[in-house]
Amino acid sequence: MENKPKLTVVKIGGNVIDSKTALKAFLNDFAALNGYKILVHGGGKIATKTAEGLGIIPVFHEGRRITDTPMLDVAVMTYAGLINKDITAQLQALQNNALGFTGADGNMILSEKRKNVAIDFGWVGDIVSVNHELVKVLLQQNVVPVFCAITHNGNGQLLNTNADTIASALAVACSKDFDVNLLYCFEKKGVLSNADDNDSVIKKLTFSKYSQLREEKVIHSGMLPKLENCYDALNKGVSAVYIGSPKMIKKGDTPYTQVAL
Amino acid sequence: MENKPKLTVVKIGGNVIDSKTALKAFLNDFAALNGYKILVHGGGKIATKTAEGLGIIPVFHEGRRITDTPMLDVAVMTYAGLINKDITAQLQALQNNALGFTGADGNMILSEKRKNVAIDFGWVGDIVSVNHELVKVLLQQNVVPVFCAITHNGNGQLLNTNADTIASALAVACSKDFDVNLLYCFEKKGVLSNADDNDSVIKKLTFSKYSQLREEKVIHSGMLPKLENCYDALNKGVSAVYIGSPKMIKKGDTPYTQVAL
Repeated sequence: MENKPKLTVVKIGGNVIDSKTALKAFLNDFAALNGYKILVHGGGKIATKTAEGLGIIPVFHEGRRITDTPMLDVAVMTYAGLINKDITAQLQALQNNALGFTGADGNMILSEKRKNVAIDFGWVGDIVSVNHELVKVLLQQNVVPVFCAITHNGNGQLLNTNADTIASALAVACSKDFDVNLLYCFEKKGVLSNADDNDSVIKKLTFSKYSQLREEKVIHSGMLPKLENCYDALNKGVSAVYIGSPKMIKKGDTPYTQVAL
Repeated sequence: MENKPKLTVVKIGGNVIDSKTALKAFLNDFAALNGYKILVHGGGKIATKTAEGLGIIPVFHEGRRITDTPMLDVAVMTYAGLINKDITAQLQALQNNALGFTGADGNMILSEKRKNVAIDFGWVGDIVSVNHELVKVLLQQNVVPVFCAITHNGNGQLLNTNADTIASALAVACSKDFDVNLLYCFEKKGVLSNADDNDSVIKKLTFSKYSQLREEKVIHSGMLPKLENCYDALNKGVSAVYIGSPKMIKKGDTPYTQVAL
């Protein structure tokens, strides 16, 4: 069997985006990563601040944000514009040939408006397909794709899409051609066995352990969809999935969680 | 001698961007163009409106706008975010595999901050080089590159750059590998021999005729840098340059000006 080349897919969240210093430190480490790589970034507080500045009032339904047209425009401006291009320009300065994407660019990520009988969440998209052939061509040209959390429906409509899910879908699609490691960086050091102790990092979270901890409500709320994305990726061909702080992408003694089947 | 494949570079300005109907009509015609093609778009009034909305006060020096940091951020948000991604998504719906670019993406257009001893124009960039090798790879993948008027300096700084000049620089760089036609679409039907008569289109504007009309002040102000870009392109290997209304990209009896040496 032919050995597939290695590919690292890294997702960073709002906590890294919101701090110029944290972002710069992360990008330095990311730029130093060898081999094929893809970066996926979330939004951070810039979208909320821009919306406030423009006098756009966020719409919520039972605590969940609705993406109406003004909010989608702000998401496109800040995620695909300000944040994505800042990251791209910074990576270029670090000799990484970064190229920023929404899902519309190169038809990279096609999605469909979320179907929900009870609530209309607005312009939110669930992923249908990934153009992994073009990703492959670009990686072979030493391009470093940088994805923001915007996709399209193929009919001219842009859609807001969860960045964790984008990272997972990209990792899965690319596992056809690559040996993929997927790294979720977030504000904690890993999946914790005690939510109040940031040092209680679970080193290896097997699916049976996850099921048990979910049952015991040790793992709950926002970690559940994140871990579902992880197991989904592992079940669909991704070689390894890690959750930890942005520091984990640098080899060293930083703790992190390996999510395993 | 080997025949080079044909490439059409089309530049549209603010007048097309500012009208949803005009943009849709133009994109329909652009999408129907056969062969390799690149789209370059200007900004339009969305940037000014967004800046106003955010309470950013434009800075002028002797009638010329200064691009300070808040204005650059707005340009990146609107040009690279809102406008570029709207065009990209619309072209995808028209079965064109559009991919949006700033000059930072893929290191496509490297520029340097404008040097001016008298006035600091702020974050304005003059083009240094174009990554035509990556343009070629993408065109060969049937990708349709869509460029906005933002470049980078290679040190992490984004820069505002004239869209006419971007179109010209792309056309020149690609003329190494392609037989390039460059089309400047604007609000008039072409270069006019009488500024008050939109039907007085000069069909063929040779350099000697241009020099004469410039001398006679028939051609003046904003048309001068536009035409300098045209002759620069022709002198550096672009096969043909046209100026006219957006309708000229559709074969038909629409008048336009051919700029010729």
